[in-house]
Amino acid sequence: MQALIRNPHGQVQFVNDYPDPRPGPDQVLLAVRLAGICGTDLQILQGYADFHGVLGHEFVAAVAKGPRELLGRRVVAEINCVCGRCDMCLSGLASHCRQRTVLGIHNHDGAFADLLVVPRRNVHVLPEAVPDDAALFVEPLAAALQIVKQCPIEPRNKVVVLGDGRLGLLAVQVLAAAGKKGNVVLVGKHPDKLLFAEKRGIQGVLLADLLLKPEWDVVIDCTGSPDGFAAAAALVRPRGRLVLKSTWTPAAPVDLSPLVVNEIQLIGSRCGPFPDAVNALAAGQVVTTGLITARYPLADGPAALQKARQPDQIKVVLEIRKT
Amino acid sequence: MQALIRNPHGQVQFVNDYPDPRPGPDQVLLAVRLAGICGTDLQILQGYADFHGVLGHEFVAAVAKGPRELLGRRVVAEINCVCGRCDMCLSGLASHCRQRTVLGIHNHDGAFADLLVVPRRNVHVLPEAVPDDAALFVEPLAAALQIVKQCPIEPRNKVVVLGDGRLGLLAVQVLAAAGKKGNVVLVGKHPDKLLFAEKRGIQGVLLADLLLKPEWDVVIDCTGSPDGFAAAAALVRPRGRLVLKSTWTPAAPVDLSPLVVNEIQLIGSRCGPFPDAVNALAAGQVVTTGLITARYPLADGPAALQKARQPDQIKVVLEIRKT
Repeated sequence: MQALIRNPHGQVQFVNDYPDPRPGPDQVLLAVRLAGICGTDLQILQGYADFHGVLGHEFVAAVAKGPRELLGRRVVAEINCVCGRCDMCLSGLASHCRQRTVLGIHNHDGAFADLLVVPRRNVHVLPEAVPDDAALFVEPLAAALQIVKQCPIEPRNKVVVLGDGRLGLLAVQVLAAAGKKGNVVLVGKHPDKLLFAEKRGIQGVLLADLLLKPEWDVVIDCTGSPDGFAAAAALVRPRGRLVLKSTWTPAAPVDLSPLVVNEIQLIGSRCGPFPDAVNALAAGQVVTTGLITARYPLADGPAALQKARQPDQIKVVLEIRKT
Repeated sequence: MQALIRNPHGQVQFVNDYPDPRPGPDQVLLAVRLAGICGTDLQILQGYADFHGVLGHEFVAAVAKGPRELLGRRVVAEINCVCGRCDMCLSGLASHCRQRTVLGIHNHDGAFADLLVVPRRNVHVLPEAVPDDAALFVEPLAAALQIVKQCPIEPRNKVVVLGDGRLGLLAVQVLAAAGKKGNVVLVGKHPDKLLFAEKRGIQGVLLADLLLKPEWDVVIDCTGSPDGFAAAAALVRPRGRLVLKSTWTPAAPVDLSPLVVNEIQLIGSRCGPFPDAVNALAAGQVVTTGLITARYPLADGPAALQKARQPDQIKVVLEIRKT
């Protein structure tokens, strides 16, 4: 099959002859329709997680092999493949399974390919109300919904979402719905991206125009950069909360003393609930129209990854199998 | 008066002719008896907080000028001098007062001197059951008690206190009392310091002997070093808690990705409740005997600071006015 891989030399490569995956017990074979490039993919290419194999973990697919009731259905799939037996799985924290593999990130081939294999339990069937272009955002939207699961928001909370990239534009919609719209602000560097939030009635502020004072109850760091983290830490009021959604490589100089001096609670946050994300999209609670800014065929994957690095892009997608 | 200062050139200096402080309204004048050198003092000498003036914030004193009921009483004093009017003070977070000064740390002369001035409200009279050598630990013990205020411990929680220095040896006693002694471990680099915990029935483990696996419910980082923080982050189980008690300067390369991947909650923690600390010492719940490892007169302050840097030291004190 065709696939976009990080090869053993750490380079991105499009290959025509990657071996077709075969589903094992309790697994299904998926034919990928559409896949999105995520910040994590770009970080993996810089060495994060030391991953080799087929990249990609945001996707919409059709079931090619599996139980009869699933065959041909349009689906998304959770990215953590778990054992169901370790202490984490048994304590209800399956996404932290000690033996997990992660699609396109850790020991499991991902979705930038014609086919991929996932556990049956990972699959969620899409309702007709959620077209492919929206369903592509189920994984990052689930990650955005995880913020309010771990950090409950009250209407009176003053909230900053820092970073107007892919995740920030979803997160700010989730936060505005969880809190009070007038108390939630998106802060970024790109006027055109801030406009996306403003069209939804959410205030957008350029980072350069923001006073870096510790006056916000909750700050969500979706910047993926040490500079962004420093700004986030400077914005949280004493005893406030900072949700860290993004990682960076390699380790960079960071000053954690504001967290201690201001007794800030930092909450690391990763993957979230797929069913909630599907429902939010079906109900129109979160809008993704306009977030896809470029489309490439899989064979042009290396160019698509280049494009995704450009600051004017929001979501770059790979069209793998047209309907 | 005599004083140990960080001078305008950033150097430590003993001076014989520092101006005597004068108490203003609602302030008292204290005659310092005993003062302790803290890790923060050593960091200030490396540039932390950009402080100039009289160093020192851990001390026992006698009231020299003030209300009649306090005159001559043996006291300790809280280190944050607050306005009582800002949003933080009015919301019950006075230790985060926006206009605060901090004894020996921020815009307020400290206790490495014959005399210092503090707000009347900061003063706590010591019971006879708490001798000077124990009362010296009220400030760091209050900081240790703050840990369990911000991060409640249940008996089933597996807890690591990382760092066998001044703060770690107090914190581990607080944690062992709050949780179950058998589930609390002190981890450090100094067998003689670990012995202090072991004598109190708390398990001590050499860092070199500890497996850095993410299996602990709660990790308290009292190391004051980026390497210590990296070890702490590696020890917390997914969705576990990491209490950060210490800062370092300058900013150092830190990898925060374990916090995100394992969805860890990091809790920055600073100053704590003085009355609780006085009570814990009076009741013998926390033992400080043996923690003072060297004593110097104030005039030998520079040598005392040198001594406090040596890894075999626990608490180095300045004897300022003998009883």
